[in-house]
Amino acid sequence: LLTTSQRERIEVVLVAPRNPLNIGAAARAMANFGLTTLSVVDPFERTWREARSAVGAPDLLLNATESTSFPETLARCTLVIGTGSLTYRKPEQPIVPLPELSAVVEAELQRGGRVGLVFGPENHGLSRDDLSYCHLIAVIPTCDQQPSMNLGQAVAVCLYELTTRASVSPHQPVQPIPSAPILPNRAVSGNLEIMTGLIERTMLAAGYSPKGMQEANRHDLRLLLRQLNLTEHDARRILGLFRRILWRLERNPGGHPRA
Amino acid sequence: LLTTSQRERIEVVLVAPRNPLNIGAAARAMANFGLTTLSVVDPFERTWREARSAVGAPDLLLNATESTSFPETLARCTLVIGTGSLTYRKPEQPIVPLPELSAVVEAELQRGGRVGLVFGPENHGLSRDDLSYCHLIAVIPTCDQQPSMNLGQAVAVCLYELTTRASVSPHQPVQPIPSAPILPNRAVSGNLEIMTGLIERTMLAAGYSPKGMQEANRHDLRLLLRQLNLTEHDARRILGLFRRILWRLERNPGGHPRA
Repeated sequence: LLTTSQRERIEVVLVAPRNPLNIGAAARAMANFGLTTLSVVDPFERTWREARSAVGAPDLLLNATESTSFPETLARCTLVIGTGSLTYRKPEQPIVPLPELSAVVEAELQRGGRVGLVFGPENHGLSRDDLSYCHLIAVIPTCDQQPSMNLGQAVAVCLYELTTRASVSPHQPVQPIPSAPILPNRAVSGNLEIMTGLIERTMLAAGYSPKGMQEANRHDLRLLLRQLNLTEHDARRILGLFRRILWRLERNPGGHPRA
Repeated sequence: LLTTSQRERIEVVLVAPRNPLNIGAAARAMANFGLTTLSVVDPFERTWREARSAVGAPDLLLNATESTSFPETLARCTLVIGTGSLTYRKPEQPIVPLPELSAVVEAELQRGGRVGLVFGPENHGLSRDDLSYCHLIAVIPTCDQQPSMNLGQAVAVCLYELTTRASVSPHQPVQPIPSAPILPNRAVSGNLEIMTGLIERTMLAAGYSPKGMQEANRHDLRLLLRQLNLTEHDARRILGLFRRILWRLERNPGGHPRA
């Protein structure tokens, strides 16, 4: 079982939920499994109001953060996990079946990291753009005939796995999953996002990125930076380097940097 | 992962559900995890009608069995598992934390048994009487502050555990849990119930059971017979013996059986 301090470092993020009952159900599952930090990104206004005014809404729902910026919501997280059923597209991130996720999350929490667990809207799940902020995609092994889970139930199943399956018995030693990104002091998402913007600006300033390619570059950069498993120390050095490069490039546009 | 044939031998039983959305959610979780047999005992009539007429109700809900007899519903099961949160009473059955349940259920299915997974009504869960038909109680490890799960979410979490955690990885060999009743060819619930009635009638015929004690005896008998872990072979021999005893006793009431 996870400790209280570990549970406090798992954030649940709901992106654009449409049904107030599902927001309530997600909050209830969080209370059942001892989590406290809920963020809702771009909720439909009425949905959000109804969910929070429901009788018996748990405190964590009343304290939940509402945001219009998905990357800002995740800024403090060191491991961002998207959830999905993978029926209609091949994802660009590593996939971890949910039964193998608790070992990955526990390792991250044990070294002091902060985990974001992200759920997409009921109708179509997380977009390719949303997923570009995720290090991993967790997949619940459902049947091909009915792969898509109800949002509130998916949250409950994921939280059950993460909070109660970790080191559950002596037969199940916590082992890093080889394919999963396990490194000390992973960089926080906020710094990865600053890095994305900085590198992109650098590419532009260096005349390397044609305007038409900008969106695609940004997407690929996000993916790449998350697969590098940068430490926070790496991230700061890289930020420092690109800030310096950019400063030189932008002082001397179109020409060559002076020696 | 369980095979299709194993999944077909897990029955989900909802006792007196009150909210049609919860019945729908239970059915949807069953479809997600590949189960097909749903029984509903004593549903509120309107609840049941609304659940089945909901848009997108899965086939298994339309094919679900409605019953007024809990023991009849369970008659073919060889292992009956009640679910609950154990906050307000000390149960009379062995308790298995949900994360340890899949090994028990898998062993039962591997030897050809049939498993009933029983969920009580939303407001107060399974009664002491309902639980007397259960071999085990499975408990989801929730927080003390908010132990009680939503019914649809509890079903999803239990089915996730049972269908996807079984033999999930080489680190987690399937081992019989020592405290759990594991024996070949466990007797079906229907025969245990016939046995309960027969032994009770025998006690009465033998003048052993005062009328006032009858209810309590019946309850204790049910508990006892489930803890014995009788095989189907045992069950048939015991039934034969008691039928014979009863025939002799009832032919010769009040006196001594003739040689």
